[in-house]
Amino acid sequence: MPEPAPSAPAGPRVAVIGLGAMGLPMATHLVAGLPVTVFDVAADRRALVTAAGAADAASPADAARAADIVLVAVRDQAQVTAALFGADGAATTLRPGGIVVLTSTVGPDAARDTAARLAERGIRLVDAPVSGGPTRAGTGDLLIVVGADPDALRAARPVLDRLASTLTVVGPDPGDGQALKAINQLLAGVHIAAAAEAVALARGLGLDPAVVIDSLAQGAAGSFMLADRGPRMLQAYGEGAEVRSRLDIFVKDMGIVTEVAKDAHVPTPLAAAAQQLYLLGERAGLGAQDDSSVVTVLSPRDGAGDR
Amino acid sequence: MPEPAPSAPAGPRVAVIGLGAMGLPMATHLVAGLPVTVFDVAADRRALVTAAGAADAASPADAARAADIVLVAVRDQAQVTAALFGADGAATTLRPGGIVVLTSTVGPDAARDTAARLAERGIRLVDAPVSGGPTRAGTGDLLIVVGADPDALRAARPVLDRLASTLTVVGPDPGDGQALKAINQLLAGVHIAAAAEAVALARGLGLDPAVVIDSLAQGAAGSFMLADRGPRMLQAYGEGAEVRSRLDIFVKDMGIVTEVAKDAHVPTPLAAAAQQLYLLGERAGLGAQDDSSVVTVLSPRDGAGDR
Repeated sequence: MPEPAPSAPAGPRVAVIGLGAMGLPMATHLVAGLPVTVFDVAADRRALVTAAGAADAASPADAARAADIVLVAVRDQAQVTAALFGADGAATTLRPGGIVVLTSTVGPDAARDTAARLAERGIRLVDAPVSGGPTRAGTGDLLIVVGADPDALRAARPVLDRLASTLTVVGPDPGDGQALKAINQLLAGVHIAAAAEAVALARGLGLDPAVVIDSLAQGAAGSFMLADRGPRMLQAYGEGAEVRSRLDIFVKDMGIVTEVAKDAHVPTPLAAAAQQLYLLGERAGLGAQDDSSVVTVLSPRDGAGDR
Repeated sequence: MPEPAPSAPAGPRVAVIGLGAMGLPMATHLVAGLPVTVFDVAADRRALVTAAGAADAASPADAARAADIVLVAVRDQAQVTAALFGADGAATTLRPGGIVVLTSTVGPDAARDTAARLAERGIRLVDAPVSGGPTRAGTGDLLIVVGADPDALRAARPVLDRLASTLTVVGPDPGDGQALKAINQLLAGVHIAAAAEAVALARGLGLDPAVVIDSLAQGAAGSFMLADRGPRMLQAYGEGAEVRSRLDIFVKDMGIVTEVAKDAHVPTPLAAAAQQLYLLGERAGLGAQDDSSVVTVLSPRDGAGDR
């Protein structure tokens, strides 16, 4: 059973499950202010946080045993289910009255299902998907959208307030945060794909895409993604962009978006077109590349298809 | 033959052809600084500018007879062709060496064809499509993207500098401005449609769309259009938004975008999906409504299709 390091600060004891692109910087940021235990299947990821003062755990169950709050930062709902309800899952050891903070984007239905299963054990779910990327995760500058009842939210505040610069409480029920996050991802995913079309068309018309982005970014055509991903798309034609957010994350998230929209009987033809683009990117071998590399589906690096 | 009013200021004599949503405020803004003659088929539109000091003309040919610069601000290429090359067209009277400033969005090929026909008469085309909307047109705060040779551009400067707060010279050839404008419209048209999907999905999920827009507009999901058109989309479910930019303009412009992209052999699936949405909006009777009304195609006012 892990023990917090002797020097660990006071406050709720936090177990972080999943030390990927977002979980690692979140855990590292939390460890400076709260007693933290970490678990990830990769020991080298755990070592990065234990070096900063976190306690090491051998399984989610091991991490949750002494915790008040379990923060889940895994990739998708299959991993959430395994991390919580598997043989070594955190729900098997977390005390009744404990809190699970779900930061992954899994969709409203998955969050509601998870909340119901946890409730059977007296555990409360705070649905809290995060946005902002790894850099902001490491500085406590995330946007977090929350669905949780006020009591559970209050209990989770020491963790959420440390991670978020903007915290929006969408509603009292798990799933409410995921609903707003799905709309966020609809816009983000469509805007990246639109920027890709703009860069590809600029190349096709013989215009300098850097000048095009510069000219348009501040006007009616502007978006956060055009300004952020546009310049990284140009790197796809050079040394390649640093991977800040993997393309296959948008394969997952646009899948959630289109399913949520379908279940609500709302047509979303642009989101559906963007989903196909990310699937094409994954099939082109770009799944682990930066999402900005999707531009090369429309305008290949080698100029294939150019006239 | 029209004469400038006796009090008219010095500078190149300008004829403005077309006094629609953009032409009217542009003409009204020009008349305060330059001698202006106006033509529009609607006499009441001309009266609005002659009241401000412009001279009245009975036809494009009549307006161009005493002009140095003819500014064309009509709806589409069919109107451009009629205004310049019809029986009473401006090209029949404009002096050799004169300048036509084409502010309409017509696509690169149409601009090049127009330039070639004008060149036969010794007239030079400054390809100068404008963005920014009627309000900024009336305050000289437009974004203008230019394709023109340096001599023609220099001659057109007194007009362009008075209308634009941002003037981007894309290249030396007519069509270069239209190429960049097409990319601008791709992004603008897709972003409006994406905002419509976001608002429709918020409604479908039982979230307050105003809160959703507010929460997301400043983050990674943000765009100029989400912040500008999003709140107007909410008005579509109340008294209806004031018409600032007609929906059928995007039927025309997304038609140009997809044709330009097809001619360049660049796939643009999101632009194509957005084009279909605007066509659906037009078929739903929204062509003369504000473009933000496209949201009602996805989420009808009467709740039809709601579960």
